[in-house]
Amino acid sequence: MTNSTQTDFNDYAKEWAFRARDAARMLAVARGEQKNAWLERSAELLRNHVSSLLNANEKDVEAASGLGLTKAQIDRLRLDEDRIEGIASAMEEIAKLADPIGEIFESNVRPNGLLVTRVRVPLGVVFFIFESRPNVTADAAAICVKSGNAVILRGGKEAFHSNHAIHSLLVEALEEVGLPKDAVQLVDTIDREAVGAFLRLRDMIDVTIPRGGKGLIERVASEAAMPVIKHYDGNCHVYVDASADPEMARNITFNSKVHRPGVCNAAESLLIHRDIAAELLPSIAESLKAAGVELRCCPKSRELIPESTAATNEDFHTEFLDLIMSVKVVDDVEQAISHINEYGSHHTDVIVTRDLQAAARFSASVDSAAVHVNASTRFNDGGEYGLGAEIGISTDKFHARGPCGLRELTSYKYVVHGNGQVR
Amino acid sequence: MTNSTQTDFNDYAKEWAFRARDAARMLAVARGEQKNAWLERSAELLRNHVSSLLNANEKDVEAASGLGLTKAQIDRLRLDEDRIEGIASAMEEIAKLADPIGEIFESNVRPNGLLVTRVRVPLGVVFFIFESRPNVTADAAAICVKSGNAVILRGGKEAFHSNHAIHSLLVEALEEVGLPKDAVQLVDTIDREAVGAFLRLRDMIDVTIPRGGKGLIERVASEAAMPVIKHYDGNCHVYVDASADPEMARNITFNSKVHRPGVCNAAESLLIHRDIAAELLPSIAESLKAAGVELRCCPKSRELIPESTAATNEDFHTEFLDLIMSVKVVDDVEQAISHINEYGSHHTDVIVTRDLQAAARFSASVDSAAVHVNASTRFNDGGEYGLGAEIGISTDKFHARGPCGLRELTSYKYVVHGNGQVR
Repeated sequence: MTNSTQTDFNDYAKEWAFRARDAARMLAVARGEQKNAWLERSAELLRNHVSSLLNANEKDVEAASGLGLTKAQIDRLRLDEDRIEGIASAMEEIAKLADPIGEIFESNVRPNGLLVTRVRVPLGVVFFIFESRPNVTADAAAICVKSGNAVILRGGKEAFHSNHAIHSLLVEALEEVGLPKDAVQLVDTIDREAVGAFLRLRDMIDVTIPRGGKGLIERVASEAAMPVIKHYDGNCHVYVDASADPEMARNITFNSKVHRPGVCNAAESLLIHRDIAAELLPSIAESLKAAGVELRCCPKSRELIPESTAATNEDFHTEFLDLIMSVKVVDDVEQAISHINEYGSHHTDVIVTRDLQAAARFSASVDSAAVHVNASTRFNDGGEYGLGAEIGISTDKFHARGPCGLRELTSYKYVVHGNGQVR
Repeated sequence: MTNSTQTDFNDYAKEWAFRARDAARMLAVARGEQKNAWLERSAELLRNHVSSLLNANEKDVEAASGLGLTKAQIDRLRLDEDRIEGIASAMEEIAKLADPIGEIFESNVRPNGLLVTRVRVPLGVVFFIFESRPNVTADAAAICVKSGNAVILRGGKEAFHSNHAIHSLLVEALEEVGLPKDAVQLVDTIDREAVGAFLRLRDMIDVTIPRGGKGLIERVASEAAMPVIKHYDGNCHVYVDASADPEMARNITFNSKVHRPGVCNAAESLLIHRDIAAELLPSIAESLKAAGVELRCCPKSRELIPESTAATNEDFHTEFLDLIMSVKVVDDVEQAISHINEYGSHHTDVIVTRDLQAAARFSASVDSAAVHVNASTRFNDGGEYGLGAEIGISTDKFHARGPCGLRELTSYKYVVHGNGQVR
């Protein structure tokens, strides 16, 4: 591309970011009832415009096969009455959540009488980049605005018409309730270079959140000049300890792998203590195989599972997102921990055990966003954890880790009350 | 420099970071009493080695004028018995603070019986870059290790001998108490290129903290591939509202400007409501002038302060770090807020007022790390806020804002306890 186009995109991105910053200043001090009125009115407008939303979506679906989308991707792209109702009621659910902004979540009185408080404030401007599913447009906007942030949405070209149809209703609702319409902006170009221009605006955009394939996440992480909330992949483990309840171990392994194999909190790897492997591994393998799971095994586990495939080292590094699972027999909990810390992706790892010490050791030493003791990997989710809504999952340690809800989109300020104190 | 040197530094930095990561894994599960034993033993060793520390420091002081250091910089560089005692007792104070690691700071029980907890964990590896004052070596190491983090220290060349003398005692204490000696590493080259190599290690270093001049901070912020905790400068304001108590307004303005003009939480700018300016500004100006403060005034304030200088627009953007103050008469609290948000550096801003609504409006709308109502800017400090220790002040919103103590060097993980739950 030419330099002049690049300059154009820089100016273009700055204009969007300026509008977002202005809106963010107003949103930061907006009352909860006003933000909730917007959420409720948006839900109403979505319900009132089902047929125009379906028409817009139809254009995207028609263009989809020409864009090379798979059948599964086209399915995710498709809206129907139920899905639109789902989007609307999700916005109403977010309206019911407590307003995070203004909460004094910590305070202490100093000996000199100063009252030192920490008050929750919005981050400011969120740049949200996503692919495929049009429901994410409304979801992300709802979480950002409820937490007092202005959002710049950048959807994929495959959902262009659907995203614009949803967005225009959200803006209509913003204007009706008296909130700035630039609180929710949808970028009107699908040019990839434009994304790069936004990612350079370190002083104007407070955080970027990419949601989509690993390629997108990697591009954003390497280009973004501002903080990014992200996770690359979920190479999640179930470790079955020597003391595990056999029935529980089978259930948790099965559920973690089979319940929804295509998502990031599905398990990809089974580790089992050598003292229980001979007794338990064959029956776990049998139930997984019955569900169509292909097992890729270390030499020791292969001896116990007839007709299994030999695992490569690469298999233990892999997020299959499919009915495939790597299997390894380990000597003890320490080896399980080392394996997970080396091969895992710091997302969600599970121990099944009846041994208090093994549970404590595993919880303390596995360096992951979530460690579950005797529960399926599938529970690592904002809804399941009680956050009420989720804009993504972070595997970073800085700022937010694990599922990110309203509070993870906030910062704080110190507000200090005195009566004339000087030093 | 040649490419081969660059490669050398990359390998060099990676080796240091690998050692730090290994140490960090052990530190993450070290008990509080062991970390405290290290702090106490370090204090003891510092006290036992006063003369060798003074000898090492003498070498730095002798070389200092050759390096072009100012008299003030040489004074900051110099150690004496009192300063060494100060370093030692600061370490003992940090030993007395509660261990932040392992704290369950939030939990909730889900309807299905899952106990969802958030547990505080260390960030991992801290890269700490600092200039001049050798006491920072021990201070930073103490805060990092107490919060379970390994630290790679990179001091300035002007304090080379002093830093190494202190560091070797800290390492001796680590070995004595059985903590990994690589928990505290001091980079043994002063080559600036080596710093660049460390700043590229996004996957191995969890956070970089620069402490020094604005040039250093800017370089680190632009080069670092990992998160940075930083502030550029402190262009702090005192706004005197129409309803301010005159005596309080004079005291707070005076203290904020004059108490220690060379630090980041000193005030640089005075805003005063037009309704009280004629009555109050002359006496505030008089007290400031008596302390040698030069006032740079807007046209309206110039009319009230004889023989003052006219302020340029640039003056209102400037952190003087000196006995200079810009002065502006504003129409109301709204104009004060806009001015601070536009010209300030989001560090510390003060309102002096008796008006509840003005205080609430100012606290909510000034977008700074700290807002003080009726208290000097000088209180924005980890010790004054009750954090116990401080490794720096952040003016960013992501992760940590304001003074950063032990907890600001931590992350968290979700630890979930079930008894066989599946989805």
